[in-house]
Amino acid sequence: MNEVIEKAKAAKFASRKMGLVPPKIKNAALSAMADALLDNAKDILASNSIDLEAGDKKGLSKSILDRLMLDGKRIKAMADGLLIVKNLPDPIGEIMAEWRRPNGLKIKKVKVPLGVIGIIYEARPNVTVDSAALCLKAGNAVILRGGSDAINSNIMLTKVIREAAYKMGIPDGSIQLIEDTSRIAAEDLMGLREYLDVLIPRGGKHLIQTVVQKSKVPTIETGEGNCHAYVEKTADQKMAVEIVVNAKCSRPSVCNAIETLLVDEAIAHKFLPMVFKLLKEAGVELRGNERVREIDKTVKLATEEDWATEYLSLIMAVKVVKGVEEAVDHINKYGTRHSETIITKDKKAAGYFTDNIDAAAVFTNASTRFTDGYEFGFGAEIGISTQKLHARGPMGLNELTSYKYIINGTGQVR
Amino acid sequence: MNEVIEKAKAAKFASRKMGLVPPKIKNAALSAMADALLDNAKDILASNSIDLEAGDKKGLSKSILDRLMLDGKRIKAMADGLLIVKNLPDPIGEIMAEWRRPNGLKIKKVKVPLGVIGIIYEARPNVTVDSAALCLKAGNAVILRGGSDAINSNIMLTKVIREAAYKMGIPDGSIQLIEDTSRIAAEDLMGLREYLDVLIPRGGKHLIQTVVQKSKVPTIETGEGNCHAYVEKTADQKMAVEIVVNAKCSRPSVCNAIETLLVDEAIAHKFLPMVFKLLKEAGVELRGNERVREIDKTVKLATEEDWATEYLSLIMAVKVVKGVEEAVDHINKYGTRHSETIITKDKKAAGYFTDNIDAAAVFTNASTRFTDGYEFGFGAEIGISTQKLHARGPMGLNELTSYKYIINGTGQVR
Repeated sequence: MNEVIEKAKAAKFASRKMGLVPPKIKNAALSAMADALLDNAKDILASNSIDLEAGDKKGLSKSILDRLMLDGKRIKAMADGLLIVKNLPDPIGEIMAEWRRPNGLKIKKVKVPLGVIGIIYEARPNVTVDSAALCLKAGNAVILRGGSDAINSNIMLTKVIREAAYKMGIPDGSIQLIEDTSRIAAEDLMGLREYLDVLIPRGGKHLIQTVVQKSKVPTIETGEGNCHAYVEKTADQKMAVEIVVNAKCSRPSVCNAIETLLVDEAIAHKFLPMVFKLLKEAGVELRGNERVREIDKTVKLATEEDWATEYLSLIMAVKVVKGVEEAVDHINKYGTRHSETIITKDKKAAGYFTDNIDAAAVFTNASTRFTDGYEFGFGAEIGISTQKLHARGPMGLNELTSYKYIINGTGQVR
Repeated sequence: MNEVIEKAKAAKFASRKMGLVPPKIKNAALSAMADALLDNAKDILASNSIDLEAGDKKGLSKSILDRLMLDGKRIKAMADGLLIVKNLPDPIGEIMAEWRRPNGLKIKKVKVPLGVIGIIYEARPNVTVDSAALCLKAGNAVILRGGSDAINSNIMLTKVIREAAYKMGIPDGSIQLIEDTSRIAAEDLMGLREYLDVLIPRGGKHLIQTVVQKSKVPTIETGEGNCHAYVEKTADQKMAVEIVVNAKCSRPSVCNAIETLLVDEAIAHKFLPMVFKLLKEAGVELRGNERVREIDKTVKLATEEDWATEYLSLIMAVKVVKGVEEAVDHINKYGTRHSETIITKDKKAAGYFTDNIDAAAVFTNASTRFTDGYEFGFGAEIGISTQKLHARGPMGLNELTSYKYIINGTGQVR
């Protein structure tokens, strides 16, 4: 039997017990996992340095090597993350609804774990710890499948947290790492509908698209964010400048950063020079339509491709539009249903925007950078869903659960 | 451009407007659709008789021809179904949660339609009308893809309800029927992740498995029900007999009927002869393990396959078990996570059963036949989900929705 099937079976078996583990034991396990990370920091750093050396030889880019790299501070951050998850309210067992039918049947809708969650991800070893913690707290077994570049780090991290968790009473088999980092192993995992309840890809566009296209296990599409800011003609322009600069520049590599700025023609002549000045100072390359170039000739001409691109870097597309309708049409055409914002004082325009934009998070007068589990108050997140089935937007513990109906009768027949 | 892509694009376009149609217009449309069915009964019956003749020539079985057949009474039932859906509360726009963050951001979680729902189904023309109504009421565009045997009926039914709906203000393109009934057209539909938000198969096991295995569009697995009744040793045996006979015999062809009976060894000698007598009178063929055959030699020996089979007919597997633990293990091994019931007076046994059984609906002292949108009080249903993602158990209007976050700020940046 191959590794993937064997571990998936074990996770499935463990998940039955995992759903019934009381909050106290789950919380004790999360504490123990945090302690174990700190206590075993030396071994973790040693494994990580093997990955870093191999990555260096392989010629991985600086930014990938940086994602891969662990140090004392990052291990401390992972341990702190475990304690944050520990302190979140336990979602399992919550009675979501309860009613009695005319025939006397008492129906309860009760929150239960999803069961077995698979996570396919890339080079960040912190995803290993973070995903394991969230799945555990929500009563799920987890199957982790990280990228080959981080494999030694992942093996050691999993070993450390797993031993600590099992010692505290977490069922054996609940935390699985697939050590085979071949494409075939990943594809095997995507076929195991029998054992996995959901598969969540965490990473870049290519990874996500591969998983959602190939998986027979239900997936949750996460992360791709071609987000927009639209500055409507009644906007407080000072506020709009701050929001646009923040949404583009505060962390350009993340999915909730904006990629395109839309501005009403009535204010473009005044607004664009103001915002362009700050964006250029921050090193942003601008690509605009002809009407933008009428205002600033240094701006490159945007192509059709630009409107559809998630740059994830200091590049921004800019378009002058006639008004809120054109802005909404543009966003619904090119956006990825992630996060969109309008800056306006006009309630009607704001209402049209929030009603008509098809996205997980629609903002008025705020930066799109707030689409985030922590910023929403969920305490943690496993990703941002851009699909509509099951969960949309930031996914916290609640989004890692399902429900079942428990119906108590007194002999009712139909 | 082929029919499937063209209609999917049109549905996607219509879905944007569809989500904003006020309840009044949706309800007026549902009324008009009901009237139109009655007014055009003659044309509908004429189209249906073409299908019936073709089916007869093709040698379709009596039961399939019966499903396919329409008459005045069945058209009236479809029209009544539309009025039931009309009278259900409109789910769209409901504020599911609302909170303010320390930075002043106001976050609202608002119920919105899923968008475009594809339904792939078989020979029952009523599914056409029924699915269109539920999708419409929940603000979705729908793409219907019925089986070839009902194609003339489906074309006429869709024509009639669509014209009525559009006249009342439902956006053009919201109700689509794929007229190409080839396998290739169905597979095309399963690939259109860009235009469809979810695909729901309604029909037999083979159809459902094909769709969930092949679709790149997110699917909801429905319907397969290998359900069990477990009679625990403290059960009120008279009640247990009634529940078992009802769950098996009241409608053996549906997914919430039971397929296997499990009985505690302590009461098997007394209970089995009682229940067997009634089951045999109802024409049920019994297949049991050795311990059952010790009690009744006329019972056929059950094979491993019997435990895993959804008979959907008057056949039932029977097993004598040691107690609730063995019963739960058996059900979790062979069940399809649909509906399971325990008959018991022992609260501890009931608690162990409802905690440990992994199924959409877990009953105590009632027939599994109550797993149904109407019986749950949802007013209607589009199917019974046996997966854990998005929706579990009976799916009504609420299960045909998603949500979005609307976040109102006053200039917040991060």
